[in-house]
Amino acid sequence: YTKRGKKDLRMAAPSRLLIRGGRVVNADSSQVADVLVEDGVVRALGRDLLPPGGLRVLDAADKLVLPGGIDTHTHMQFPHGTRAVDDFLQGTKAALAGGTTMIIDFAIPQKGSSLLTAFETWRSWADPTVCCDYSLHVAVTWWSDQVKEEMKILTRDKGVNSFKMFMAYKDVYMVRDAELYAAFSRCKEIGAIAQVHAENGDLIAEGAKKMLALGITGPEGHELCRPEAVEAEATLRAITIASAVNCPLYIVHVMSKSAAKVIADARRDGKVVFGEPIAASLGTDGTHYWDKEWHHAAHYVMGPPLRPDPSTPDYLMNLLANGDLTTTGTDNCTFNTCQKALGKDDFTKIPNGNGVEDRMSVIWEKGVHSGKMDENRFVAVTSTNAAKIFNLYPRKGRIAVGSDADIVIWDPKATRTISAKTHHQAVNFNIFEGMVCHGVPLVTISRGKVVYEAGVFHVTAGDGKYIPRKPFAEYVYQRIKQRDQVS
Amino acid sequence: YTKRGKKDLRMAAPSRLLIRGGRVVNADSSQVADVLVEDGVVRALGRDLLPPGGLRVLDAADKLVLPGGIDTHTHMQFPHGTRAVDDFLQGTKAALAGGTTMIIDFAIPQKGSSLLTAFETWRSWADPTVCCDYSLHVAVTWWSDQVKEEMKILTRDKGVNSFKMFMAYKDVYMVRDAELYAAFSRCKEIGAIAQVHAENGDLIAEGAKKMLALGITGPEGHELCRPEAVEAEATLRAITIASAVNCPLYIVHVMSKSAAKVIADARRDGKVVFGEPIAASLGTDGTHYWDKEWHHAAHYVMGPPLRPDPSTPDYLMNLLANGDLTTTGTDNCTFNTCQKALGKDDFTKIPNGNGVEDRMSVIWEKGVHSGKMDENRFVAVTSTNAAKIFNLYPRKGRIAVGSDADIVIWDPKATRTISAKTHHQAVNFNIFEGMVCHGVPLVTISRGKVVYEAGVFHVTAGDGKYIPRKPFAEYVYQRIKQRDQVS
Amino acid sequence: YTKRGKKDLRMAAPSRLLIRGGRVVNADSSQVADVLVEDGVVRALGRDLLPPGGLRVLDAADKLVLPGGIDTHTHMQFPHGTRAVDDFLQGTKAALAGGTTMIIDFAIPQKGSSLLTAFETWRSWADPTVCCDYSLHVAVTWWSDQVKEEMKILTRDKGVNSFKMFMAYKDVYMVRDAELYAAFSRCKEIGAIAQVHAENGDLIAEGAKKMLALGITGPEGHELCRPEAVEAEATLRAITIASAVNCPLYIVHVMSKSAAKVIADARRDGKVVFGEPIAASLGTDGTHYWDKEWHHAAHYVMGPPLRPDPSTPDYLMNLLANGDLTTTGTDNCTFNTCQKALGKDDFTKIPNGNGVEDRMSVIWEKGVHSGKMDENRFVAVTSTNAAKIFNLYPRKGRIAVGSDADIVIWDPKATRTISAKTHHQAVNFNIFEGMVCHGVPLVTISRGKVVYEAGVFHVTAGDGKYIPRKPFAEYVYQRIKQRDQVS
Amino acid sequence: YTKRGKKDLRMAAPSRLLIRGGRVVNADSSQVADVLVEDGVVRALGRDLLPPGGLRVLDAADKLVLPGGIDTHTHMQFPHGTRAVDDFLQGTKAALAGGTTMIIDFAIPQKGSSLLTAFETWRSWADPTVCCDYSLHVAVTWWSDQVKEEMKILTRDKGVNSFKMFMAYKDVYMVRDAELYAAFSRCKEIGAIAQVHAENGDLIAEGAKKMLALGITGPEGHELCRPEAVEAEATLRAITIASAVNCPLYIVHVMSKSAAKVIADARRDGKVVFGEPIAASLGTDGTHYWDKEWHHAAHYVMGPPLRPDPSTPDYLMNLLANGDLTTTGTDNCTFNTCQKALGKDDFTKIPNGNGVEDRMSVIWEKGVHSGKMDENRFVAVTSTNAAKIFNLYPRKGRIAVGSDADIVIWDPKATRTISAKTHHQAVNFNIFEGMVCHGVPLVTISRGKVVYEAGVFHVTAGDGKYIPRKPFAEYVYQRIKQRDQVS
Repeated sequence: YTKRGKKDLRMAAPSRLLIRGGRVVNADSSQVADVLVEDGVVRALGRDLLPPGGLRVLDAADKLVLPGGIDTHTHMQFPHGTRAVDDFLQGTKAALAGGTTMIIDFAIPQKGSSLLTAFETWRSWADPTVCCDYSLHVAVTWWSDQVKEEMKILTRDKGVNSFKMFMAYKDVYMVRDAELYAAFSRCKEIGAIAQVHAENGDLIAEGAKKMLALGITGPEGHELCRPEAVEAEATLRAITIASAVNCPLYIVHVMSKSAAKVIADARRDGKVVFGEPIAASLGTDGTHYWDKEWHHAAHYVMGPPLRPDPSTPDYLMNLLANGDLTTTGTDNCTFNTCQKALGKDDFTKIPNGNGVEDRMSVIWEKGVHSGKMDENRFVAVTSTNAAKIFNLYPRKGRIAVGSDADIVIWDPKATRTISAKTHHQAVNFNIFEGMVCHGVPLVTISRGKVVYEAGVFHVTAGDGKYIPRKPFAEYVYQRIKQRDQVS
Repeated sequence: YTKRGKKDLRMAAPSRLLIRGGRVVNADSSQVADVLVEDGVVRALGRDLLPPGGLRVLDAADKLVLPGGIDTHTHMQFPHGTRAVDDFLQGTKAALAGGTTMIIDFAIPQKGSSLLTAFETWRSWADPTVCCDYSLHVAVTWWSDQVKEEMKILTRDKGVNSFKMFMAYKDVYMVRDAELYAAFSRCKEIGAIAQVHAENGDLIAEGAKKMLALGITGPEGHELCRPEAVEAEATLRAITIASAVNCPLYIVHVMSKSAAKVIADARRDGKVVFGEPIAASLGTDGTHYWDKEWHHAAHYVMGPPLRPDPSTPDYLMNLLANGDLTTTGTDNCTFNTCQKALGKDDFTKIPNGNGVEDRMSVIWEKGVHSGKMDENRFVAVTSTNAAKIFNLYPRKGRIAVGSDADIVIWDPKATRTISAKTHHQAVNFNIFEGMVCHGVPLVTISRGKVVYEAGVFHVTAGDGKYIPRKPFAEYVYQRIKQRDQVS
Repeated sequence: YTKRGKKDLRMAAPSRLLIRGGRVVNADSSQVADVLVEDGVVRALGRDLLPPGGLRVLDAADKLVLPGGIDTHTHMQFPHGTRAVDDFLQGTKAALAGGTTMIIDFAIPQKGSSLLTAFETWRSWADPTVCCDYSLHVAVTWWSDQVKEEMKILTRDKGVNSFKMFMAYKDVYMVRDAELYAAFSRCKEIGAIAQVHAENGDLIAEGAKKMLALGITGPEGHELCRPEAVEAEATLRAITIASAVNCPLYIVHVMSKSAAKVIADARRDGKVVFGEPIAASLGTDGTHYWDKEWHHAAHYVMGPPLRPDPSTPDYLMNLLANGDLTTTGTDNCTFNTCQKALGKDDFTKIPNGNGVEDRMSVIWEKGVHSGKMDENRFVAVTSTNAAKIFNLYPRKGRIAVGSDADIVIWDPKATRTISAKTHHQAVNFNIFEGMVCHGVPLVTISRGKVVYEAGVFHVTAGDGKYIPRKPFAEYVYQRIKQRDQVS
Repeated sequence: YTKRGKKDLRMAAPSRLLIRGGRVVNADSSQVADVLVEDGVVRALGRDLLPPGGLRVLDAADKLVLPGGIDTHTHMQFPHGTRAVDDFLQGTKAALAGGTTMIIDFAIPQKGSSLLTAFETWRSWADPTVCCDYSLHVAVTWWSDQVKEEMKILTRDKGVNSFKMFMAYKDVYMVRDAELYAAFSRCKEIGAIAQVHAENGDLIAEGAKKMLALGITGPEGHELCRPEAVEAEATLRAITIASAVNCPLYIVHVMSKSAAKVIADARRDGKVVFGEPIAASLGTDGTHYWDKEWHHAAHYVMGPPLRPDPSTPDYLMNLLANGDLTTTGTDNCTFNTCQKALGKDDFTKIPNGNGVEDRMSVIWEKGVHSGKMDENRFVAVTSTNAAKIFNLYPRKGRIAVGSDADIVIWDPKATRTISAKTHHQAVNFNIFEGMVCHGVPLVTISRGKVVYEAGVFHVTAGDGKYIPRKPFAEYVYQRIKQRDQVS
């Protein structure tokens, strides 16, 4: 009679749950209500539900009951170069521990390679191992008739409604303006949303050469060779091109005030553009690149970089609170210190990225606890908006009758301290080390099953499902179509 | 057996309705669903509802089913000086014809007079006559301990959670900065939202003197003596004062690009401030003040004025679409040409205002049909956001089980032409004359009763109810309270 | 005894002039003073000068005495495709008639061709024919070691301190970001200022294809395929790249509000960047592209296009007045209607450009007469600033002892009406036709000689001189060098 | 034969000087030239001047020769409450030591008191004691027909062309909007420039009450009760009112990014408004208010306060460099620690102010040495622009033939460290303590006399002169008048 056995037993229990007496928080409003879960979906929502017997009751009094988080931006077990240490198994467990119940990862073909093959490769890694639901964006790293055709197939047959283009990583993933134009045009035809990594790859390449020539080889060189103007420039360029095509655009990992302002101004001007800051840009800053400990500094290396301006996180959070930025991801892609050390003498060789786990906590602390946003906006930016943009709403992103029972019981009054010692990620460092966070995920429920509770996982590899997404999400495409009609 | 008899019969029918097969549009998303209405509220929502017999079925196939509009800003039968011609009876009928099922009017005491008395006076006019639900903002036109006490009573006992202060109308309604500070502080203590008419009253008084001295007596003088800088200045001042108090602020009738920009920038900066453009500022502009026909120009006189910059409506609509502006009213206050003629020789004597009826149509046409916003944002800005701010949500502002059945069946493909000849307002002029609007309200349902259908009213004076509003609306006060705690 | 003889006689007169009693206007201030000119330069400046005899006295009482204008941007007899009708002879005559005493033209090699050869070619056209002083910018239309080397030679030996790169004209003149980076880097090494034509050439190419595919072949297609966002994007990109290199940047022909705002914001942020609006963008707008007369519309075709937003000229003039924009050119490149007709069925084939003559008048009318700028700022933006940036100051751009006697006697109270019927340009159309301008050039003096007076020219082809310019202009490079030292 | 005797001898020497071989820096450009000074004015300027004998030669090789600084904002021996310790004697000596050769102080009547009397009082203090030239702004602290009349007299007969109004200091100096309107209107009639201290006095009064009620009594309360929004609000209000009157406006002591942005935006929009940051806001910041040493923090107390945002000085310097801000003062008003201690238990009682001496050095260090502005812009913002605005140009603010010989020989390569131990001010603290400044004034010449050299003063109390200023300065009023004509 082992611990393992106990878990199995619990798993075998009828998949019915009653979450009792919590404050159910959706993006539009909150209410104290019981939530009845059956067969993986929410069956009823109301005061004093009297469900049939044979179910588990979770007491949520004085707690919040939130839609599970959706991380819009992860790279689990990213394969190019050294392999990211958090794979789909460990990574999705860490996600669940943090209150995230769905991730959207990226299938990224090499230049000249098939998008479909990349997609299937990522599926083959994820399907057997994921512990939460997931979906896949696909990257367009080159352009050809084949690519164009595969985009259609992916959208029509494979549940992909988002494609990402890199404006950085010259000679590796980078595409040029004419290719962006073509890719955006294609996205629009097939009802996908275009995503861009917005940095000027030419400037980065030149900047990196310059820094190394100056003898600047440490992590600070990473920021110095691609300062925020490099990000803001590309952001405006992407928006300008997308607007020429009347294609919806999604800027991944917004890292700087100036890039965020470009997005916010474009939205004010009526552009259909969405910005995704990440936990890192919302919760910490680039002053760490000048840390005396090389390994400390190196763990903050991600692209685009964090910014040395210490007012950046507050600024981004204000825009996220206000609706100028829309969703939140992590750009999860974790490497241990020994992997980071590949760039010991050359910052351009430091593998980039950070972890998936703490997004919800960091946003709650810096966003909600600080008074910048309320609990409803928190749900919007951690879950609902992603579901709308990627056409999963209201199946995901809302606690409502009929929705998937991806739910977090959240204690807004408890605190926890983030640490690599206690986190559930494989990686041996945490960029938020020592941050005291109000707001703690107590229980995580994925498709109606309690998968994380009181620090213990109850998961089975492969329990998560690939979630196909239909094109022409209304949240994104209503305006696009109407503009085409009246212009 | 008369037409009247038929109507009575219909009214007497069991208050059950089934709205079948429409596209139910809420602020977060849309779905094709039947809506079952019983006893004035929504009882069920879903595909292929099979209700019991004895109810009326409204076919909404290919139509939209929208939450009834909430006009946040009306002055029915405004009494000071000449009386506004649309009274609570005629005005609320016109509102219903346009798809608006609730208005929030203003009780405005003279300086030195009791707020409570003003409130009761307005109740006495409205209660016997209104044909749709209504509520009352109360104006604070002077400051004293009595005023302070009455604000508490109004909030605690009378269902008032919003108070409006005038920064214009010097010597009449205008209060000064120290009084604004006091009033805002009081609003915050009692959980109300502060509203301001934002124009610099001193500058208007001086400007009007100057214009008249220059011999400019016509309606164009109205704009020339209070250009948009006068509005933007006061807007920033109000926001600065409210922010010093950490009091939520609501700017009524946003009329200019520069004032709207002040609000948008403040929101980006984290201020809890809401902006309300009106149908007039979204649908027309101030070039009319230079119309050769005096009476034509005079009918556009409202305060603050419409702006001669013809790009104003598009700009305001973009901000409304983007979330920088939040709600929409009309500043309904109608006067016939003969009343306008009081200012024939002096524009300062022209009574101000315009009509309630066409708000929904104008916003649909300029906002949705143009592709600036989608149908969901339309619902948000015409209804849902007002319900949230004024603490009526989700009873109002949403079609959901348990909500009041204030519903409009809307034909997005039909068009109608706005005209004073066909509108239902008492006033003899329409500032949108000739505007062809896509989007036509076919049927208006108020608290479960069909009150307007196919051009015919089925209303009884007094059928509308006064809707009390509780203080500390969460949508407004969550952040305010949290900021107090952590600051 | 011919007219020609009379002119010669006058020319042979001792080259001494006394300009008496005028209000001498420099960029910093004005004073009533006599100006004594000898041997082509200003010898004395003061009240009641008593010069030796044998000189001509010009009465300037109640008139302004201005430094002659410097047009920073002309393409006389531009050769590619059809040849511009105003050649260096006719064009410089027209310039003088308008009060412009120096032009800076562009030597533009084809891709793959020598810059030096282009430079010499342009010299060979200009030297024998110019009637006023001139200088040459050189275009960098491709990149190679040869180009790099020739840039050095041009700067060191040929008096060129400015190089222009095109971000538009894909496959013709356009260079890409990495080439811009290289060219900017080179400019900085040799002390030149980098200039860019800022439009996204990829977007223009795609846009043009799209318009033609839609059947839009008229001049309006010219604007529709390259709206102002295309200009603003490239402007920000150029600034970002130049800033990465710490190279001073000069944006030629600023045509839109949004591009101008990008420049103004960059300057506020400390960037060493200068913006050059042109007479056309300051004096008219792009609504003409929709004119019913094809030939009328076609004559407004220039690149970047004029903007349909009618508030553009006022906006640009405000920024020019305020110091956010710095110099003014014309982008002179004139084609007759029959040449424009090359694009009768395809707007992409309409040759671009407009005339040199009316710059000073248009800026006086829209800038000074309107009250936007004073006479001193007028001198700064039409002459002094150009002299500073291109390292000609105070030889050019100022009336001071020792300066070249390039002087205009200007009547600020007189008016004239611009018309193709009366202008001195070869071209048969004037985009400012009918504009009544206060501010009329009465007498133009070039290097101490009266070359235009009372409507009559007194010029000899080739009298103008090529003016070499030294690198590292202090106005531009002081900050650049200091930043290199302290960064 | 004493040191004193030696000094007298030197003073008695014929007032001729030759400054040889320096780089003469004016606002428009620099040149290496000799400067011949005679009878207090510049007589000649040129290479290798060969002056007659009997004059002193100052070797300026490798040095800069700058127009003496003009401090636009001082309060020497300010009398209300405790008296400022730097009086007109000591204060002007300190000014000279720092390279400032002219100050403009303020005559400030109490409410209800005569402006003329105040003016004469200040004259009576200054005339016998000043060691450099000076002028007087006069404050309008109340409004009446008498005030209006006295403004005219001061302008017509007393050489005053600038009047300052306080929007802060409620019940003491503060005037309200209608009074501002009246004062601005009057300024415009008489050709004066209106100046404002821009802070919302009502908000400060309420804020101070609130801070004290919260138990915050220390210097940090000074900033907390009047955060930058309070300054920005008043700045916009003043600009709006001045613009309504078409009166030129000058904002004294710009202390915050947001206020500076308001000014910069207004200028971009064409407003005739000038902003004056001060040495303190350009050289340090408000984090000092939280210093643990009370006396340290208290010495930074000035109104408006320094800002805790550490990016403020850089931002202001960028705007000063770019032309968005125009002049620089100090708001000199010095109090010793024992005087500051009046506010030991109540920050509202701490006397405000800082010193006159280090303005030039601080701006050189933070502006020129940093690469933000060049030496010419330095001259513009420390001297020339003030001379233009206050109608002293080119008598002051330029080294040119005929100008007053107010000259500084400046060593741009030398450094000095600012310290209260070595400064020449009476006050016992220096807010720039420890700042290492490149750029050292070696010799200061006032009206042709060497008054400070190698650390030694050669001054006589009363040697400075009151400089009357004529109304309708062209730099300010050209546009104003033209707008009146064409509007």
